[in-house]
Formats: sequence, C-alpha cells, structure tokens
Amino acid sequence: MDHLPGKTIERLSAYRRVLLNYSTKGKSYIFSHELAGLLHITAVQVRRDVMLIGYTGLQRKGYYVMELIARIGEVLDSRDGQKVAVVGFGYLGKAITGYFVGKRSKLDVVASFDINTKKIDTKIKGVKCFHINSLKTVIRKKKITIAILTVPTDVAVEVTKNLVKAGIKGILNFTTVPLNVPPGVYLEEYDMITSVEKVAFFVKKYDKAEK
Amino acid sequence: MDHLPGKTIERLSAYRRVLLNYSTKGKSYIFSHELAGLLHITAVQVRRDVMLIGYTGLQRKGYYVMELIARIGEVLDSRDGQKVAVVGFGYLGKAITGYFVGKRSKLDVVASFDINTKKIDTKIKGVKCFHINSLKTVIRKKKITIAILTVPTDVAVEVTKNLVKAGIKGILNFTTVPLNVPPGVYLEEYDMITSVEKVAFFVKKYDKAEK
Repeated sequence: MDHLPGKTIERLSAYRRVLLNYSTKGKSYIFSHELAGLLHITAVQVRRDVMLIGYTGLQRKGYYVMELIARIGEVLDSRDGQKVAVVGFGYLGKAITGYFVGKRSKLDVVASFDINTKKIDTKIKGVKCFHINSLKTVIRKKKITIAILTVPTDVAVEVTKNLVKAGIKGILNFTTVPLNVPPGVYLEEYDMITSVEKVAFFVKKYDKAEK
Repeated sequence: MDHLPGKTIERLSAYRRVLLNYSTKGKSYIFSHELAGLLHITAVQVRRDVMLIGYTGLQRKGYYVMELIARIGEVLDSRDGQKVAVVGFGYLGKAITGYFVGKRSKLDVVASFDINTKKIDTKIKGVKCFHINSLKTVIRKKKITIAILTVPTDVAVEVTKNLVKAGIKGILNFTTVPLNVPPGVYLEEYDMITSVEKVAFFVKKYDKAEK
C-alpha cells in the first residue's frame, strides 16, 4: 500500500470520516455512489480508491461500512499509533489540540509547546503545554514523530530546524512561511488565506456571471 | 480569466504570498525556478500559470516582482474587495480572525458570530462578535459575501442553511461535516484531520523504508 499517492490518502481519510459518521446512523452498508455523493466526488473515483486498497463490496448491498472503515485503518494507521505535538499554543494551537483529542485514537496529541511562560503547564483537554526550550527532551521522551506547526511566522524556520534535530519525521505547517525539510521528513503545508482567496475568486466569478 | 481552475487559483494565491515576502527583502526580480523552489513545485508549472494570466518576464531578469503581484491581484481580487464573516467564535474562529485582519486589504473580516452570549460584543483586532440570531441582519447590512465556518459539527448544516438564506455566496467549511449548498454558492472544505492523517501515513511509510 506504500505506493499510494497523497491525493488517494486524503480521500481515504475523508471516506473514513464520512463512514464513521454514517455508521452512527445505524446503517450497515453503503453504495459507492452514496459515499461519493456525501463528498461531492464521482462514484468511479470512490470505486477506484477502494479497489486500490484491495477491498470489494457486495453486488446489491454495496460496501460493508465497518469492514471498509477497518480496511482504511489498516492502510492509514500505524499499529502502535503515532504521537503528535502542537507547536505554538495560541488560538490555532488550542483549536487543533481541542479538536483532535479523542477523535482519532491512533493519532495522539501528547504535548504542546510555547515560548510564553504564562502558558506553560496549562492544559487543553489534558494536553499539557511545555516551554519551547524543552522541545528536544519532551519529543524524545514521549517518542513524538509528528509536529503541527502554528508558531508566529518570524520563528517558523528556526523552530522547524529544531523539530528536525529533535527527531520529528512529519510536519504539518499552518504558518504562511514555506519551509524546507531534509529527505526523510515529510512536510505538508496549509495556508488558510489561499483557501479564502479561492472562495473569493469563485464568488467574484459567479457574481459577474449574474450581471 | 474566469476559466481558471481551482488548483491554478490556489497556486496564484501562493505565488503572491511568497512574492510579497520576497519583495520585502529588497529584490526586484525573480526567476520562475526561484519562485518554484520556494514552493516545492516545478518551474514549468510556474511559467504555465503565469502565462495563463497573460504575464511575461524578461529573458535575463525573470519576473518583475511588483508587476507580477499586481497582475495576480487583478485576477484574484474584486475591485471593491469582499467582506468576510467568521461564524463560530471559538479558538479556531479567533485564530482565523486574528490571522486575517490587516493581511489582505481586499478580503476584510468585518464580523464574527457565536451563540455564547458571553462572547457577544467582544473583539479580536477590532472585529466584533455578534449573536448568531442577528446573522441575517448583520450579513445584509455589512454586505458580507463570504463566510468561514468554524461552528460545532452538530449545528453546521443548520447554520449553513441560514448563511445561504442570508445571501452568502461562498463558504469555507472548517467543520468535519460535509455540506451541501445550492448552485451559485461556492463551497470549499478543509479538514485538518485529513492533513494530519496524510502526514502520519508518509511518516509510517518512511519509517518502514528505514527498517
């Protein structure tokens, strides 16, 4: 399964999220076109992805929801789970921590970091904030492999270097600073301004079309 | 320019962000491969996108940074700007509001909404929080066209219906609930769990490769 491209991984993650929600409604089976409809994509795409991970549904019933969730879990999750740190404990760091805890048992936010001494030892949903100076110690001790970066832009590059030195293997960058990481470290970047600018562009376009 | 696909719009937004940062370093020109390197994409991609918006650089100097920024602005921005509301004033809503204000003059966060009466009339960087009951009135009065949705999952669908009724034309959905909007309303969805699961998958993959 290691050859799966990033876009497929994103969709598998989305399928699982939707399926988990769907399963709480007491439904056991789902057709590919139903799953596709919930995510605004095509049924062909869904079937292709599900085939890629070696799962098949039943002709007249569709996919067995719990089995498909389990199969996606086998592909996406590590057996022993992975430990996550939130670096930067401002509003965004707190939002992410609160959002994550308890949602995915295989991805466990176990620490947050900040430079503001007032925040040290405070907690969100049981996750404690450490001083950024103890980054390396805490990451190694708690065997953290993933960092979610929400620090101010002017320190993003420096903090990233320290994360890599501390042994972090994957970074999700929420700052607007494009980062560089060495081979062997996976970097995913998300800039919310880009998303809002995209929405704004299409709103403008629709608006023009109406006139 | 209205035919540009979503992915091109995302990259144009990213180019502008990087160029704005680059221009503060006192540099006037940039080569396509330099811009590409800053965003971990290919120079061919950059040149294709820039050609699509009808801009060309100089043979030996590259793109004139301020001109390219201006050209991207003509494509992405509305002449009179657009008004944005943040709906849900928890940590994430506050993070987004604080992050946005002053960054993009053409996209103006002018209101936030929450159901918690304690938050009403509080402000982040001058942006006031209104009660969700006055959603329609405030959106119409302030001519807001874009909403950033950060409400709890259980009310996401209902709030979205009210946003559409109030005349919102574009929604950026940060909740984990897949939404439906009528034609003429643009929807962009972002789920941070998907991003973190993607990072986790590639970390697992690298980890296996090492063993």
